[in-house]
Amino acid sequence: MIDRRVLLTSSLTMLASSPLFARQRRIGRLVIIGGAEDKLRDRVILRRFVELCGGPAARIRVLSAASSEPQASWETYRAVFADLGVTDCAPIEIPDRDAANSAAVTDRILEADGIFISGGDQRRLMNLIWESDAFRALHVAFHLRGCCVGGTSAGAAALSRHMLVQGEATRLPEKEAAELDIGLGFVAGAIIDQHFSERGRLGRLLSVMAQRPQMLGVGVDEDTALVIERGQSIEVIGKGAVTIVDGRAMHSNHDEIESRARLEMIGVRLHLLPAGHHYGTDARGRWSPKVPVALREAVDQLVTPGPIRG
Amino acid sequence: MIDRRVLLTSSLTMLASSPLFARQRRIGRLVIIGGAEDKLRDRVILRRFVELCGGPAARIRVLSAASSEPQASWETYRAVFADLGVTDCAPIEIPDRDAANSAAVTDRILEADGIFISGGDQRRLMNLIWESDAFRALHVAFHLRGCCVGGTSAGAAALSRHMLVQGEATRLPEKEAAELDIGLGFVAGAIIDQHFSERGRLGRLLSVMAQRPQMLGVGVDEDTALVIERGQSIEVIGKGAVTIVDGRAMHSNHDEIESRARLEMIGVRLHLLPAGHHYGTDARGRWSPKVPVALREAVDQLVTPGPIRG
Repeated sequence: MIDRRVLLTSSLTMLASSPLFARQRRIGRLVIIGGAEDKLRDRVILRRFVELCGGPAARIRVLSAASSEPQASWETYRAVFADLGVTDCAPIEIPDRDAANSAAVTDRILEADGIFISGGDQRRLMNLIWESDAFRALHVAFHLRGCCVGGTSAGAAALSRHMLVQGEATRLPEKEAAELDIGLGFVAGAIIDQHFSERGRLGRLLSVMAQRPQMLGVGVDEDTALVIERGQSIEVIGKGAVTIVDGRAMHSNHDEIESRARLEMIGVRLHLLPAGHHYGTDARGRWSPKVPVALREAVDQLVTPGPIRG
Repeated sequence: MIDRRVLLTSSLTMLASSPLFARQRRIGRLVIIGGAEDKLRDRVILRRFVELCGGPAARIRVLSAASSEPQASWETYRAVFADLGVTDCAPIEIPDRDAANSAAVTDRILEADGIFISGGDQRRLMNLIWESDAFRALHVAFHLRGCCVGGTSAGAAALSRHMLVQGEATRLPEKEAAELDIGLGFVAGAIIDQHFSERGRLGRLLSVMAQRPQMLGVGVDEDTALVIERGQSIEVIGKGAVTIVDGRAMHSNHDEIESRARLEMIGVRLHLLPAGHHYGTDARGRWSPKVPVALREAVDQLVTPGPIRG
């Protein structure tokens, strides 16, 4: 393993092209869960997460700092992962910003094969780790080590760069109905919302699309996950569906109306992807014929990771 | 006025081109209301309906046969229209199919400047009037006399040819989640749903779109109306919005899956039109520059009336 001091002080962009990493690098995968994932029965999603981390022998680290009860949250996942046969599971404990800059925490992050980010409040998580060593270490883990990163509920929202933090589920889209902040940035071209169809959040996500028309909106249902294989494919697993809202060619009246006024949105593209579907290219970059042409641009945007931060 | 026996026995298509009608014909307008329209305060929608019928002196006829309590429904609208200054308002009473073929009923329909269709159950209405003289008379009224036709809730759903009759509000679209039947047919290219965002009916409307991909889906919110001026424009009035779902270029897995399985729908176009917006052409057919190009095809499809039936 690379020395943490080297990792946290060198230019990550330069390190990324070092042959040292080329050898040990795996495909970074994201498992974006809409919350309320099954922890008792088939556990399709958490089982897949473990598999993508490398199986039961993988070093899985749980980051529960988004939760107001991080200890309880960690205990829950510790039990589930143990039940799934994981032998090396440990918490990444970040009670305050000092911890976020501690060697204990960055070591935990840098040794991980998989990092699981719990639910709670995405803003609490980002306040604790923004611009800390832990933040930088998460980028090293995902971008350079190809660590699998999973996030559920708030932990899913935090994976995107433009992070949805607050806003009621307005039935109809309104200007500035939801607030945005900066998230972890592993997904650069999309804004992630969770508990999506259960909480009727299409109106809220559309509100945000009007503010950031270059972004895709990704709504993930409960007990459902969007698995992103960087540069290659997306897949929907679990019970519900993933809704993708693409407003890049849309006309909206966002710039002409007052805050909280009703939005006019014309020409939004909507993709509804139920669990059980996989969309991607082969290793040579050729699209599977099963991927409708209308979806390819959106898949491309989703599998392109954000830049390395730190 | 043309004799009802002539009207109900001649070929309506031939009559339509007769100079007799060319003279007295007005633009047929539809006022498609999503239910729960304001009857007490500003009454924006019902006031506009009266205006489009020709103002307080217009002969307004109320068809409440969709309701399980048609008398009470008629009384309600009688009072509201009286309050709005209407002096000639009468019910079109159709308790059974005999009445639907009676001279009294067809006379009421043929003399109308405006016909208002109440809520209730769209199937009850259609069972009573399907292929009756009243049905034929409604077509004469709308197509030949240019009578304004308004419908709320079930009365709105019944205005389309492919009529949505039943189906729970599934959060996610499922194959055959909703049932279709034949409606009045004044709107030929769209399926109308009502109480739309209030009852979270996008999933249900998308289910139907997968069955009829050549149709537009039109979801009208409560206390909101889509006003269609035939051949020319659409306008949204009231409190909420009209959602148009266009699946004509969509990819769906409808033909590959079992009934009630989750639908994959890719490339659906969504237009959200809040109240206060008007989209159309001028008398010479030129689009107002305010109408985004992405919406024009949909407007065209909505302003094209169905064929004359009878």
